[in-house]
This record gives sequence, structure tokens and C-alpha cells, in this order.
Amino acid sequence: MTASEDSPAGTIRAVDVIRKKRDGHELSRVEIDFLVRGYTLGEIPDYQVSAWLMAAFLQGLSREETTNLTDAMLHSGEILDLSEFSAAKIDKHSTGGVGDKTSLILAPLAAAGGLVVPMISGRGLGHTGGTLDKLEAIPGFNANLSTAGLKEILHTCGCAMIGQTAEIAPADRLLYSLRDVTGTVESPSLICASIMSKKLAEGIDGLVLDVKAGSGAFMKTDDDAALLAELLVETGCRMGKKTIALITDMDQPLGMRVGNAAEVDEALAVLRGGGPEDLRELCSELAAWMFHLGGRATTIEEGKNLADRLIRSGQPFEKFREMVALQGGDTDAIDNPALLPRAAHALDVKSPRSGYVGAIQCDTVGTACMLLGGGREKKEDSIDSAAEIVLHKKSGDRVSAGESLCTLMYNSQARAAHAKLMIEQSYRIVDSPPPSRKLVRRVISAVQAG
Amino acid sequence: MTASEDSPAGTIRAVDVIRKKRDGHELSRVEIDFLVRGYTLGEIPDYQVSAWLMAAFLQGLSREETTNLTDAMLHSGEILDLSEFSAAKIDKHSTGGVGDKTSLILAPLAAAGGLVVPMISGRGLGHTGGTLDKLEAIPGFNANLSTAGLKEILHTCGCAMIGQTAEIAPADRLLYSLRDVTGTVESPSLICASIMSKKLAEGIDGLVLDVKAGSGAFMKTDDDAALLAELLVETGCRMGKKTIALITDMDQPLGMRVGNAAEVDEALAVLRGGGPEDLRELCSELAAWMFHLGGRATTIEEGKNLADRLIRSGQPFEKFREMVALQGGDTDAIDNPALLPRAAHALDVKSPRSGYVGAIQCDTVGTACMLLGGGREKKEDSIDSAAEIVLHKKSGDRVSAGESLCTLMYNSQARAAHAKLMIEQSYRIVDSPPPSRKLVRRVISAVQAG
Repeated sequence: MTASEDSPAGTIRAVDVIRKKRDGHELSRVEIDFLVRGYTLGEIPDYQVSAWLMAAFLQGLSREETTNLTDAMLHSGEILDLSEFSAAKIDKHSTGGVGDKTSLILAPLAAAGGLVVPMISGRGLGHTGGTLDKLEAIPGFNANLSTAGLKEILHTCGCAMIGQTAEIAPADRLLYSLRDVTGTVESPSLICASIMSKKLAEGIDGLVLDVKAGSGAFMKTDDDAALLAELLVETGCRMGKKTIALITDMDQPLGMRVGNAAEVDEALAVLRGGGPEDLRELCSELAAWMFHLGGRATTIEEGKNLADRLIRSGQPFEKFREMVALQGGDTDAIDNPALLPRAAHALDVKSPRSGYVGAIQCDTVGTACMLLGGGREKKEDSIDSAAEIVLHKKSGDRVSAGESLCTLMYNSQARAAHAKLMIEQSYRIVDSPPPSRKLVRRVISAVQAG
Repeated sequence: MTASEDSPAGTIRAVDVIRKKRDGHELSRVEIDFLVRGYTLGEIPDYQVSAWLMAAFLQGLSREETTNLTDAMLHSGEILDLSEFSAAKIDKHSTGGVGDKTSLILAPLAAAGGLVVPMISGRGLGHTGGTLDKLEAIPGFNANLSTAGLKEILHTCGCAMIGQTAEIAPADRLLYSLRDVTGTVESPSLICASIMSKKLAEGIDGLVLDVKAGSGAFMKTDDDAALLAELLVETGCRMGKKTIALITDMDQPLGMRVGNAAEVDEALAVLRGGGPEDLRELCSELAAWMFHLGGRATTIEEGKNLADRLIRSGQPFEKFREMVALQGGDTDAIDNPALLPRAAHALDVKSPRSGYVGAIQCDTVGTACMLLGGGREKKEDSIDSAAEIVLHKKSGDRVSAGESLCTLMYNSQARAAHAKLMIEQSYRIVDSPPPSRKLVRRVISAVQAG
């Protein structure tokens, strides 16, 4: 018996919870609640929680622990009550990638199909973009709504896109900031608890998860992505929500444009019935699963057909326009994307030789866009909505020596040369066409994971 | 390339150092210096250092990293310059146990043999006692001397025993406090850096380490203790100091008395030529190694003979008396130990049956003494010098049913019953004598480890 074990009966001490996890033991629900509640209330200091996070990172958390952590974080704040809406409340969440503007398309598309989509999104950090940053490229757009404001807009148009409020999962905001500076971000269990605590606070009935795999994602391999996907799906299901995950390709950017205003423009193109093939395909697939979870389609095929019909009808575009107006955005920029912020300078990256694009180091493209001003290195950095990387060639495309691979668009020249160098190094040109990769690699459903 | 790797060329970021250790890579000297210096200067916050400590705990530090960490911590503060002393400067350090009062005997014994012993000691926490707490049982004794005060006393009597000053290894004080509350104490590398940074700051030529093994020690097995001992010896030798380690038994308390005033009394008994056999044997062995490292004995046998001769001469007792006087202590209590603090109450623990003492759960005895008021549960607790546990029986001793195993002496009754229960549970009575255990198990010398 040591001094630390001699605490009064029934009391828990943070140091003992840390040591238990350090030694690889499973924590009880009470111990996890103690830690999350104590940290949220400011009773347990940062330095104890960061030691615990590192122990959890290296020793892992069981599925049971992950569910309990998610639940404790969820209950650290407000949980939206959307029971006043009779339609199914379904959301989509992506684990983060480069050029991923699907949320801008899916929220109005699903709403046009009769679902309610209360989408609470985040901002970009490092090489990944954030939905809020994209929306804020629309002049006047206000993502800082209260949950009351969110509900009001949902009643009018069925979808709304806002930022995390102070009331939603405050434990997650605290823990995420701490993980960011203590090297404890890339843990499947901690990622799962962070995502699910926020998403379940939306008061939804079902959730479609887009788990990215590849060089532009947190999870580099399909297997790692599947592990995270299973954890997410199991946690969602354990907490009584219909949850499904698709493992999708993030070995190159999604679509042809990376940058905030550029991605709004490309999303508008899809909402108008055009846009690049891969982006359209992924939106159709994700929308189909949303419709399926929401009871609007009995099969995925039927869901895809519904999505395609809706896009052709123009209703999703109108929904998006309506949502932007309700959130204070300038609809002129929706009707005429030339009014969106545009960069003053352009720089072409040319192919050094003829051949095929074998691979694009995807996170490098995201980081290069960040260097052009389009992203944040640190949370407090401001961003330039106009900064953009336009891809002309993607994996498998034929290219001649001297032909443009992509164009960098920017206002600040400070790090443009560095960004260009990075893009040059990110393209691998090979002699024969690489094997084609499927965009949707795997579906992890509740039934399979349960 | 991710955002975190895109920091300006040549700058190091704490989060990257954390991640590198998290992923099991070896840190460079520059990275370790960055971390220790940044933390000491208050530029790197607690929460990053605690995440790093947990990563270091779980991933381990190489010998090279351990040496670099020790050196960085050593150079975070003042290093005593004792070059004005022509005699060899030799110290002894124990990794902490129960009933271990050897320092009180060895400092004056080694000084009587012509060595200079600048002993900087610590306080007890949990089940382990601290040399300073013992000394402060002597009325008036002042351990809070400056390094200038230390030198003055060394000039007069050759030995002095003080507490860690603010100038000595400030990084260790910060790191130790943080480890204590973040579950990162029991790491061989972190223990090694903590011990050696303080001991090498004493400006010594050589160091004898007493690495405890058993139920009352941090290291429960001989093998774990040997691992720590090798690390300590190698680190000392790498840093140019003669360093030797003995692995010694801490499977039962050392000597017959545990408690602060009681241990001063027992140390005085040894200095007067009496005292319990195990304590005398260990002091003789440790002193012999001190004399050997300090060039006063060519063999250990010769060193033991010198120690025994000295004890018989009464000089070490006079040295201790002189040192106490120079440090403000009441020498009447040295001449007449009955003047040391004494407890008002006594409680006997009796053997439930006849047989032999098979084992004593040693840390439990330390914790029981703490519960009686003789130790600290938290750093800020005050202690009662008079609280004591007197052992009447030790491992291998024959005992009859109802015979007293030990006596608890205390002033505060608050937790006496709890302490008694713990002591009852800590004695295992068996039918036949247990195999006898060697007190000094192994010697780890510079030559073997180098």
C-alpha cells in the first residue's frame, strides 16, 4: 500500500486515474466521468489531463472506454432537442481532407429531399480545410448562430450550417485545444470521442460518416481508416443513433479546386448539375446514405436516384441560396460566383516531363494552399478566402512536358515560391497509367460493426 | 508535410519534441536541452512537459538521452565548486526506503576518515522517510543553509547535511513536482536524471549509490533495481564521476526503529558502536566503498576495517555532534537521546500464532508510520517527529502466539487503529524459517557497466 492508494474511501484522485491508464488498465465509467467533469469545471489542471491524454494515446482506450468518454464529453454541455421536427434529422461528418466541399452540397440536397440537417461544423487547421471557412468566403455569411437561431432556420429551410457554440460539448473544446499542443491528436479513440460528442449534441437521429483514407487524411491507410470508422459506427450505435461510415479516397484532393471561395464556387457548380465527376459521385453516394438512414430511400440505389433527380430539379441550389440568405450571406455571390473573393496573382506549376500523373501527395497540396494564405498554421491565424490551388491534372491523367499541372492563385507573395516548390514535389509523373483507385472504398455499417 | 513541420528553419517546437518521443524516437541533445531550459524559464508550459513525461515514461529514454537529460537538469542551476578542498569529495545516496538512517551515520563516519561529504538530502513522501525530516527531529537543527553556509561547515568538520537549495538543479524541482501529480515517478531514466542532476551539482568526485530492492522500495525486484543501478552508474561515469551502486535489501525495514526521532536515536547507537546488526553491516559496506572511491582504502575489506576502527575510536560520533552544533542543533539531545521527541501513546501488535516471521510488507510499515503522523501524505503536510514503529521481530525470527511483533508509538490517535490494522496485515507468520536474504545483493561497478 502506497500513500496514493490511501486516499479516503470512495474518492477518486486524478493521479490514480492517470496511473491506471498508464499501466494499460481499463477505466470505469465513473473514473472517466470524474476526469471529464473535473477538467470542464477547472478542478483538474491541464497538466494532469495532458499526461492522461498521452497515456490514453499510447495505451489505447477500449470500445467501452471510448463510448464512456464520448458520453461524458457529450453531457459536458447542451444537447439540442429537435423533437419538435417531425422529419428525420440526419447529418454528415467528414474526418477532414483537402478540397472536400461535400457538406456545402449535402446539407441543401438532403433538406430538399425532406430531411432536417442541423450541421455544426469546424474550422480548418494545418493542411485540412474547414466548412465554416468556406462558407465565410460568402460576403456577410454568419456561422455564429445560437442554437435558437439554428432551430429558426431549420424550421424555414430544413438545413443550417453553424459553428460549435460555447454550450455544445465544452469538454471537447478544452480537450481538443490541449491535444493540439501535446501531440495527442492522432488517436482513433480520442478522435472518435471528439467527433461523436459534438455530432450527438446536435440531437440527430442518424449520422453518415465520411472517413477519409490516404495521404491527405489523418488515417493514411484503408485499414487505419476502417479501424476509426468501426469505432465511430459502434460508438454511434451504442448511443442509440443510426450510424454508417464510408471509407473514401483522400489520396488526392476532391474535385479540381482547393481554397475557400473556390470550393464554394465548385460546390455551386455541383448544385447546378455540373462540377467534377469525383465530387458529384461522392455527394450522390453520401446523400443516398443520408436518405436511407432518414427513411427516404429503401436502397442506396434508390437514394442515388433521388439525389440525382433533386439536383436536376434545381431545388437543392434554391435551398442553399435560401440558407445563405437566412444566415446573412450575400446571395448575389451565389447567383454570380464571379463576385466571390478572387486572388490577384497566378503561378503555374508545369510538368517536368511527359507521362501520367502517378500520385499527388495530397496533404502537401493542402499545406501549400495554407502557405498561400488559404489556411491556418495556428488557430489564431486569419485566412485569405481568395487563395486557391486549381488542379488541371489528377491521378491517371496524361500530361505532356511543360503542360500545366496546376495553378496557384494568391494575394500575398510571401510564401508563394515555397508553395510552388511544394506542389512541384507533390506531383509524381510516371511512364504508364497508375491503377485506378475506387473513390468509395468500403462501407462500415452498424450491422457489420455490431 | 504537415503544418507542425512547417515551422521556421532551425526552430524547435515543444509539440514536435513530444511527438518524436511519443513515436519512440531518440531525442537529440539539442531537443532535450530545449525542453529542460524552456521549462525552467517558464517558456514551455506544464501541460506540454507532462505529456512529454508520460511519453518518456511509456516509450523509455535511451542511455544517451538519460545522460543528456541529467546534464541539462544539472546545468539548469548552480554547480558547487569544491575545488578549494584538497580531500576527496564523496557522497552516498539511497533511492529511498523504510528505516534507512544510514546517511546520518555515513556522513560523519566518512568525514572522520578524511573525506569531505557535502550531503544534500530530501524530505520523505508517502511510505519513504527523508534524511532532513530525521535531522529536524533534533531540536534547533537547521538544514536550510546556503551553499556558502555548507562550505563553511565543511571546512570546520568535513561533513554537512542540508536541503536542496533554490539554486541547485531547479529543473529537477519543477520536474519532480510535476511527475508526482502526473503518474510519471517510477521511470528508471527519470529517476536517474533526478538523482544524478542533484548529486552531481554537489561538486563531488565520487558517489556511492544504495539502490534499494524489495517491497519497501520503488524497485520491487533485484532485476529492476539492477537496471536502475546500471543506469545511475553509467550516467555518473559518462559525466566523469567515480560511481558505484550496491543493490541492497528493502524487503523489510532497515534496523529496528522507523520514525524520525527514533531513527536519529538508532543512528546514534551505531555511532556509539552499538545498534542493530543489519544497519551496522550496511553502513560498514557503504562506508568502505566511500573510502575506496575516495582513495582511503585500496580494497573493500580494508575500507570496512577502517570504518570499524573509526567507529570504535568514537570520532564519527564526535563529528556528528560537531556537525549538529554547527547547524544549530541541540547537542544535549545527542548526548542524551531521551531528550529527543517522544510519543505519548503506545499500541502493541501481537502475533496471532506461533511460528516464524516469513515476511514483512515493508512499504506498509512505512505507510503505517505515516498514518501515525511520522510522514507526509502530501508535500505540504507537517510531521510528528515522535511517531514511531518499533520492530521487535524481523524476518526469520521465532515468535510465539501473543508475543509482541512491534509497538506503535504516537501522539495523534486519529489513524492509530488503521495503522495497527495495516501492521497486522503486513506480518506474515509461517511454520518454518524462511530462507535468509543477503543484505547486499549485488555491486554494480563502473567497470562492469562501462
